[in-house]
Amino acid sequence: MPSTTPALSLPSAGAPFEAIALERRDLRDDDILIDIAYAGICHSDIHTGRDEWGAAHYPLTPGHEIAGTVAAVGSAVTRHQVGDRVGVGCLVDSCGECESCKDAQEMFCTKPAVGTYNAQGYDGEWTAGGYARQVVVSERFVVRIPEALGLDEAAPLLCAGITTYSPLKRWGAGPGRTVAVVGVGGLGHMGVKIAAAMGAEVTSMSRSDAKKDEAAAMGATHHIATGDAAAMKAARRSFDLILNTVSADLAMDDYLRLLKPNGVLCNVGLPVEPLSVTPFGLIGGNKVLTGSNIGGIAETQEMLDFCAEHALGATIETIDASDPAAVDAAWDRVVAGDVRYRCVIDTATIPG
Amino acid sequence: MPSTTPALSLPSAGAPFEAIALERRDLRDDDILIDIAYAGICHSDIHTGRDEWGAAHYPLTPGHEIAGTVAAVGSAVTRHQVGDRVGVGCLVDSCGECESCKDAQEMFCTKPAVGTYNAQGYDGEWTAGGYARQVVVSERFVVRIPEALGLDEAAPLLCAGITTYSPLKRWGAGPGRTVAVVGVGGLGHMGVKIAAAMGAEVTSMSRSDAKKDEAAAMGATHHIATGDAAAMKAARRSFDLILNTVSADLAMDDYLRLLKPNGVLCNVGLPVEPLSVTPFGLIGGNKVLTGSNIGGIAETQEMLDFCAEHALGATIETIDASDPAAVDAAWDRVVAGDVRYRCVIDTATIPG
Repeated sequence: MPSTTPALSLPSAGAPFEAIALERRDLRDDDILIDIAYAGICHSDIHTGRDEWGAAHYPLTPGHEIAGTVAAVGSAVTRHQVGDRVGVGCLVDSCGECESCKDAQEMFCTKPAVGTYNAQGYDGEWTAGGYARQVVVSERFVVRIPEALGLDEAAPLLCAGITTYSPLKRWGAGPGRTVAVVGVGGLGHMGVKIAAAMGAEVTSMSRSDAKKDEAAAMGATHHIATGDAAAMKAARRSFDLILNTVSADLAMDDYLRLLKPNGVLCNVGLPVEPLSVTPFGLIGGNKVLTGSNIGGIAETQEMLDFCAEHALGATIETIDASDPAAVDAAWDRVVAGDVRYRCVIDTATIPG
Repeated sequence: MPSTTPALSLPSAGAPFEAIALERRDLRDDDILIDIAYAGICHSDIHTGRDEWGAAHYPLTPGHEIAGTVAAVGSAVTRHQVGDRVGVGCLVDSCGECESCKDAQEMFCTKPAVGTYNAQGYDGEWTAGGYARQVVVSERFVVRIPEALGLDEAAPLLCAGITTYSPLKRWGAGPGRTVAVVGVGGLGHMGVKIAAAMGAEVTSMSRSDAKKDEAAAMGATHHIATGDAAAMKAARRSFDLILNTVSADLAMDDYLRLLKPNGVLCNVGLPVEPLSVTPFGLIGGNKVLTGSNIGGIAETQEMLDFCAEHALGATIETIDASDPAAVDAAWDRVVAGDVRYRCVIDTATIPG
């Protein structure tokens, strides 16, 4: 008889959350049972939960920014032990055999990889995420959370942290490099913190100056209000790297113009409409338009260690889920851009 | 009294070529007078000469794939001497002071750089290109053509060679890497030759199989007819780098799908319409869409030395310009994709 855990669940697209008893599988040899402490609210939870990306499978328990402690381990587990502070991000399985898996980029597994929620596992069962008190995950997809990070401020790093760390590292954010981060939200505020900790000269960019001072406190030495045409013009040809965390449709050419020759514009948000870019916008300056999708498990551990070393927790608001409607309300605030800068659910408050 | 040289000139957009006596400036201290032997016909000559890109200034003498010998040197010239085999590409001046100039990327000079034709020099005079018997160029923009290359087969390297060499090098074409070259024309045939010489596994791609055998002789070990939907599907996730030399509007997403994770699609053609790409097409696989614009002078020399070492001349058809209409006809054949693979004008035949 499978065990259950209190969880939040969406019965259908557009319906509010309800508290349920969620089944979790019995531990396999390589499984870890985690007592979840905090689960971050990622914008993609909302896209998925509200079926905005299609392919939503209900009932649906979101959550792929999971931080907690190990409650039990399967017989063959070697990487973690009971009591360890651990995290789980966007993935819970991959084939382990393909070129991408061997290359530590499990997110590009050809089988393909299995998402932490709303995905069908290799056993045919649908996965359910971290808006719950417990979760069972193969040890290969469980990372260690260093002591220097609180579990609450660490939870968002499992998606927002790795999603910004990975492209900042790939594209060389560091001393002597100018980096702009577009959007100062859940992803963007971590982008500012991480890029600054890597040693880059960081400019935050958002629609207005409302978040300017807080971005400065996170490490940005300059700020551009994207609605200020004169400021946008003055910033032309000034960045080595622009990390765009905004999911809305932005005019790519306007941002490509801000790059130095050989500069890189990396999108980590997923707007619905196709991007449009003039051919000369890329060729005139050998510019790069790219995207980046989370990161592999080893790199996620590397990111957590980096954030611990530099004391880079997420800036969070904690959500009490005693009334599940509080999570619906938090989602609305995320969509409205009204969160500073990431909501985390205190999962101990989930009714059950 | 300025000296003149026989040249071909377009009096206006759409008019045929006529033979004229073109003024060339007296040698400045750092200038070199070149007896041109061959001038390649680049597709951008046509775009410019027919005013398809706007900003054409008539009368207009095109040509930025110039090979010849040094006829005279200014008093301060040190890099070349009379009799040297030399070439001139797309640029004839730049400020020499800005970050891009100091970084050996003169094409991105902020002043900006001066094109070999249809550009206004820093002295206010309009430049005129290589469809002529002589040209005067500052020694900084004159490169050496190694003995191993014929001047006729070397001329196209000054644009088609560097335009393909530079991105192939930047993006790591070499042993163990799979490279596709889209379009087997003036640029593409050099892309195939250079990528193969760099040690990459090369696939040529064109609309049909018509050029398959010749591409194989140039070094391609595979060929894909882009009209073959099954072949396109079978090639998904198989390339580290795609060099797109086609100026027409191609569906970027179709080509991004052919890339492995972290793969790069580099455009060197300049279609008129904006490129459209789905955000997930880039993020799903951390893919890169980029462009590349010729190369700096030092890299152009490096490319010529590489091509000489590997015996990589362009595959050419020589055009006799005794009747200037022959050049008009060659242009029409370039537009029709009917040239194998680059036309070069034997400039000694220019009437005058």
